[in-house]
Amino acid sequence: MIDFQTSPDRYRHWKLGFEGAIATLAMDVDEAGGLSRAYELKLNSYDLAVDIELYDAVQRLRFEHPEVSAVILTSAKERLFCAGANIKMLGLAEHGFKVNFCKFTNETRNAIEDASANSGQYYIAAINGPCAGGGYELALATDYIMMVDDGNTSVSLPELPLLGVLPGTGGLTRLVDKRRVRSDRADFFCTTEEGIRGRRAVEWGLVDAVVPRARLQEAAMSKAAELSQHSLRPIQANGFALRPLDRRIEKDRLVYGNVTVDFDRSRGVANILVQGPRSAPAESAGAIERIDDTFWPLALARELEDVILHLRFNEESIGTWVFRSEGDGQLVEQHDRLLFDRQDHWLVREIVLYLKRVFKRLEVSSRSLFALIEPGSCFTGTLLELALAADRAYMLNGTREGREEQPPHIRLTKMNFGPLPKCNGLTRLQNRFLGDPGHLETLSQRLAHDLDAEAAAGLGLVGFNPDEIDWDDEVRLALEARAAFSSDALTGLEASLRFAGPETLETKIFARLSAWQNWIFQRPNAVGENGALKLYGTGKRPIFDARRV
Amino acid sequence: MIDFQTSPDRYRHWKLGFEGAIATLAMDVDEAGGLSRAYELKLNSYDLAVDIELYDAVQRLRFEHPEVSAVILTSAKERLFCAGANIKMLGLAEHGFKVNFCKFTNETRNAIEDASANSGQYYIAAINGPCAGGGYELALATDYIMMVDDGNTSVSLPELPLLGVLPGTGGLTRLVDKRRVRSDRADFFCTTEEGIRGRRAVEWGLVDAVVPRARLQEAAMSKAAELSQHSLRPIQANGFALRPLDRRIEKDRLVYGNVTVDFDRSRGVANILVQGPRSAPAESAGAIERIDDTFWPLALARELEDVILHLRFNEESIGTWVFRSEGDGQLVEQHDRLLFDRQDHWLVREIVLYLKRVFKRLEVSSRSLFALIEPGSCFTGTLLELALAADRAYMLNGTREGREEQPPHIRLTKMNFGPLPKCNGLTRLQNRFLGDPGHLETLSQRLAHDLDAEAAAGLGLVGFNPDEIDWDDEVRLALEARAAFSSDALTGLEASLRFAGPETLETKIFARLSAWQNWIFQRPNAVGENGALKLYGTGKRPIFDARRV
Repeated sequence: MIDFQTSPDRYRHWKLGFEGAIATLAMDVDEAGGLSRAYELKLNSYDLAVDIELYDAVQRLRFEHPEVSAVILTSAKERLFCAGANIKMLGLAEHGFKVNFCKFTNETRNAIEDASANSGQYYIAAINGPCAGGGYELALATDYIMMVDDGNTSVSLPELPLLGVLPGTGGLTRLVDKRRVRSDRADFFCTTEEGIRGRRAVEWGLVDAVVPRARLQEAAMSKAAELSQHSLRPIQANGFALRPLDRRIEKDRLVYGNVTVDFDRSRGVANILVQGPRSAPAESAGAIERIDDTFWPLALARELEDVILHLRFNEESIGTWVFRSEGDGQLVEQHDRLLFDRQDHWLVREIVLYLKRVFKRLEVSSRSLFALIEPGSCFTGTLLELALAADRAYMLNGTREGREEQPPHIRLTKMNFGPLPKCNGLTRLQNRFLGDPGHLETLSQRLAHDLDAEAAAGLGLVGFNPDEIDWDDEVRLALEARAAFSSDALTGLEASLRFAGPETLETKIFARLSAWQNWIFQRPNAVGENGALKLYGTGKRPIFDARRV
Repeated sequence: MIDFQTSPDRYRHWKLGFEGAIATLAMDVDEAGGLSRAYELKLNSYDLAVDIELYDAVQRLRFEHPEVSAVILTSAKERLFCAGANIKMLGLAEHGFKVNFCKFTNETRNAIEDASANSGQYYIAAINGPCAGGGYELALATDYIMMVDDGNTSVSLPELPLLGVLPGTGGLTRLVDKRRVRSDRADFFCTTEEGIRGRRAVEWGLVDAVVPRARLQEAAMSKAAELSQHSLRPIQANGFALRPLDRRIEKDRLVYGNVTVDFDRSRGVANILVQGPRSAPAESAGAIERIDDTFWPLALARELEDVILHLRFNEESIGTWVFRSEGDGQLVEQHDRLLFDRQDHWLVREIVLYLKRVFKRLEVSSRSLFALIEPGSCFTGTLLELALAADRAYMLNGTREGREEQPPHIRLTKMNFGPLPKCNGLTRLQNRFLGDPGHLETLSQRLAHDLDAEAAAGLGLVGFNPDEIDWDDEVRLALEARAAFSSDALTGLEASLRFAGPETLETKIFARLSAWQNWIFQRPNAVGENGALKLYGTGKRPIFDARRV
């Protein structure tokens, strides 16, 4: 089982240090600390174990260190930045793992960019030696790339010439779309094993500055201090610890404080029950300052994220994730009011941004997403996003015979109208009503109203609203049909339908780039007996089928 | 050899009729008329042979029929519209052919949309019976979809449930991005074999109207007449015939009037020499009216298009296309002036739009594109687009020793600043200087100036400008390196680097959607021994690997 929970005291691959508002995150990979003994993580190369720690550090820097407004990303190895993803690991990995590994590492890099863009916690890459492949892609996720100017230090994306695959962590997209490197230069750069160094790297826009080796640390600190000045981070605030999740993993069940997952393995379904808040948020003066990791929206975000990552990596044959909720919609609404109204407070903002990132993870997961809105549920505001993110939401029209229950209702809050955009930059409502933007105005007038199944369907918020006579059969048949389809075709279908309208760096990375990479990852030229990825390190030369497809 | 040249007198699958400003293009597939005898084109299903004729018709409607402002796309079969791409054909086809087939059919549908959007030649789909898969995707390319309202007629995209693949001709993208169908409805629709009919199809936005069977033709004619009123098409003008290309196909050589292709098979290179115009365009009054298919820009567009399609399908192992030009840049400039200044004239506009489409075909081709700018070349304006489209352009700095020649120069014309956008909607210059939009102003001040290699490199128009000492080695090494790389990785790299910035329906189709489809097209769930595409029609049920990737 791959576990995504860790904490700084357990890091084997990163050193995290602090100097006032500036943190230094130094890569120092333990060669023997990979997920598997089948490879050694030489030359500061990484595998998922290294990236899990990186993600954890990025996450804790936001919550536990409000005083940090700049992070210097560097290497603790002498004259060596990072050799990228470990190639032997990639060569040994199954297709599905490779794809999931790239997805997670991409999300970590996106989280770095989210910290800069939305929290004013800026990242600087200080490159102190060769920086290849995924190492350079990591640098590309920062705001400013500084490199030692010597004969030995270069940036490179050698994946294509060396391995017959693409840089898998957003590198190509970030080259031309983020750094706006000219495509002919990008072409040259990505087909040149040894990379580019010195002034030419600056001239081409591959890095922002080169400095003499002796001045690297000083220059990075100085740049960090400069960026810090624009930061919104609250120097004086206190962070708090993200304590280990209270989690129980059983054979067919995952139990967290606010989320329970039951597996229906025969149908390939994970039934995910989300619990609403058990009480209202405190409203007294200073209540926000006393928020900690038990605060419902934050606890929920952490648990949902862990569920998503666990299911992606450890439950590959569970193809459909079915969300239900349980609780009091009014309590959700009260939390939403606090989240929405107090985004000026750093911690509230962090929690909202975190919820946003978790919902984004959901939609780039290669699983069918269903939501079932039944009596007793609380799909209100933030939780309604789960239903809006679903490929299909079913809402029971009325109640079930013989049960004492109220018919289900859903409720919109302001959280549905802005703070939780999808990867394409649109809210789920904007994305849903792309063909009728005026409808958003109508919806905003229904804020805080209970909407029953007919009202919800009438407003287009749920697609399917069978009554009790049809409910069981309709839901069962839909889930059984899903289980009978080709898993791959579903992945392609969902990736194509979920994101209409505008594209962003993120959607380009998760769609265009990842789709091509996935394609290449299973071509004989990469993974066949004579493929480049398979033969790397053996001394044998790959044999390519020259036919262009 | 697959030949893309045809003409209406040779059509086996389409009936083209005219009634004033309204043309009717009726699909009437000859079951025995496919490219191969291994399958029969039952139920108006199609293969590449059918689509080659469709593309030819779409093209001729623009040039040969200026009086046509609306086209009714329908079926000549009784109570049957189209069953989509022939499944047996897809099951038998090699991966590369499937991908290329989808690319070409996509381009044909894009050409239909280009006719509506830019020539005011509107398309209406009149669906007279079951309309499945690629049949519905064809309808999606039209401006207005009208369907018979009976129990037998529906639209459907059954690829996923039936075949374990995606609709391959833009259907998913057009559903959510063009017609803005809600994604939950699109999900339901694409997972429902039998499709959707009648009023529900209208309500969901899958079609625009349903009409009783007896009224279909009348309603289509009436809608066509209505759309015609907004048309820019010149009712009174005369078209002219696009005569068969003067073309010679030899073993290692293709020879056209303005283009010659020489194969260097050992290096996987096609050397494509483009000839500039031999004389200036006539400037007398009425000269435009006397333009015919010998007019240089039009002849060039037709020949280049045929070269691209020929190389894609018939020369899969030729991985690099190297463009050179030869001729007088001033004559190109004179043609460009006419093209740019007289876009108000329907025929000039058509030629410009055609050039645009041909250059677009180039950039979605899975081949490395190089341009070599040498003495005697005429990379001016429209021809300079070839160099700007290239992944790399090399320009000789100076001359070669011992030869009596002028150093090469390039020249910008207004044709580089607007009329020939890429698939992403940007001109090649905009795309190139995305990071420095102000540079376009600088460039526009260099219009009509001869730029030598240093000036061109200084302005960022060419990436590499070796002098005679380095030229031969640098070019040779670059081409040899290209030939040694993984063909698949190059395809993914180029597709990722060529289109920065905004996305359009077209880029989404050629990147996101096609990349996913290509991935699925080689997954065991589709094409393995027990894959759905492989087993279709055998009565056996596919066996899927349920693991989601």
